[in-house]
Amino acid sequence: MELGVVDRYTHDVAEAVREADMVFVAVPLGAMRGVFGKMCGHLREDAVVTDGGSAKASVIADFRAACPGALARFVPGHPIAGTEHNGVEASFAGLYRGRRVILTPDPDNTSAQATRRVEAMWRACGAEVIRMEVERHDRVLAATSHLPHMLAFGLVDALARMDEHDDIFRFAAGGFRDFTRIASSNPVMWRDICIANRSALSRVMHDFADEMKDLALTIERGDGDHLLAIFERAKAARDAYVDGLEAGARDDPAE
Amino acid sequence: MELGVVDRYTHDVAEAVREADMVFVAVPLGAMRGVFGKMCGHLREDAVVTDGGSAKASVIADFRAACPGALARFVPGHPIAGTEHNGVEASFAGLYRGRRVILTPDPDNTSAQATRRVEAMWRACGAEVIRMEVERHDRVLAATSHLPHMLAFGLVDALARMDEHDDIFRFAAGGFRDFTRIASSNPVMWRDICIANRSALSRVMHDFADEMKDLALTIERGDGDHLLAIFERAKAARDAYVDGLEAGARDDPAE
Repeated sequence: MELGVVDRYTHDVAEAVREADMVFVAVPLGAMRGVFGKMCGHLREDAVVTDGGSAKASVIADFRAACPGALARFVPGHPIAGTEHNGVEASFAGLYRGRRVILTPDPDNTSAQATRRVEAMWRACGAEVIRMEVERHDRVLAATSHLPHMLAFGLVDALARMDEHDDIFRFAAGGFRDFTRIASSNPVMWRDICIANRSALSRVMHDFADEMKDLALTIERGDGDHLLAIFERAKAARDAYVDGLEAGARDDPAE
Repeated sequence: MELGVVDRYTHDVAEAVREADMVFVAVPLGAMRGVFGKMCGHLREDAVVTDGGSAKASVIADFRAACPGALARFVPGHPIAGTEHNGVEASFAGLYRGRRVILTPDPDNTSAQATRRVEAMWRACGAEVIRMEVERHDRVLAATSHLPHMLAFGLVDALARMDEHDDIFRFAAGGFRDFTRIASSNPVMWRDICIANRSALSRVMHDFADEMKDLALTIERGDGDHLLAIFERAKAARDAYVDGLEAGARDDPAE
């Protein structure tokens, strides 16, 4: 309230949701089920519930377990936005502007009207809304978000454990700070994401580790043509990705 | 010359070095031997040669092969500075200010006077000079610089090859742009670094891939305590690293 971020607050979940027509649950994945459980009996007849969890199958299972019979009103969602910071001090009004939000409504259970209301809410925040099948969401996010976080956490931890008599980070170059920024992310949030999306994430990590071993063999062989092809393909894809982001920012009338 | 970066230039290596008392060779590692070969017979009696290559054993072997008998005047060096950009347009006057430069003189061959002159040159650019044994340099840089580049190139390439019917980069979140910035680096330069440092780099890649597989198993098991310990250690190390950088920037009288 001091920061002007919320109009009012309560630590009592039942109290918080009693008057709400829309409930957005934004807690670490490991806390979802408990929060759902506290709100279920206290929702208005027409209230819609959505969330911001980075894995979706686990949240759906949590809602189903905590609020059996209420699945029609639950619209699982994932805004693809955020920084390595967390907590209310890290909030800013434009966080969702021009960003994508993935919704994974269940065709057999979720009310179409509830989904439309959640879509309208996100569009009002300036976001682009995409619908996706749950398993595909969890697989795609494992690759594009969860895996990079594991690489960053894993690399920093590996370097910190190397050669304990010396400060190896002294020799980290310019790009290292950016590369490892996501290793400053909240450990509890990421523990919960790993466990919630364990199946898709562990698969993509095994695959990536195998690719790194292949790449190491290519380097050992000194196969320069193959290396150049990989690096050129990657640079082209990454440059195109950034060009796309910048074109998106230019096209956004709100910017 | 138009940009005010150099006072004069020539494409003739022999001509370029004829009057020089200090020669700094800054070409991709694969081009080192050829450039050394073109300059050897044309150096002044008292000229010192140094370089900026990201791997050092290979450059020393190149110099030894191209200029046998001249090792006393060669001071292998590696400024730990740079961006994902390259070429003369990417140059800026403060590039080396407050950065570290590693020199790997050979105690049996390099002239102590030559090493002192190269140190003085780097200090005049605002850099901090560190001496290191060649093998240690190549091992440390494999871990702190070459491995992160392989992870970034490898990740972007893996995502670009995934699921060709869809633009998977659409679902990359905020941290992805920073994490993959180094995948925009020069492919030829990195092909050469990989080959020049193939032994140390492939070893560290195999080790890291094994650690990723271990981490994937920890995730599959759902061992939250172990995950939290890794992520907390990594976050603490990364935050301390950034604090160190920022303290260094505050302490630097040139800033």
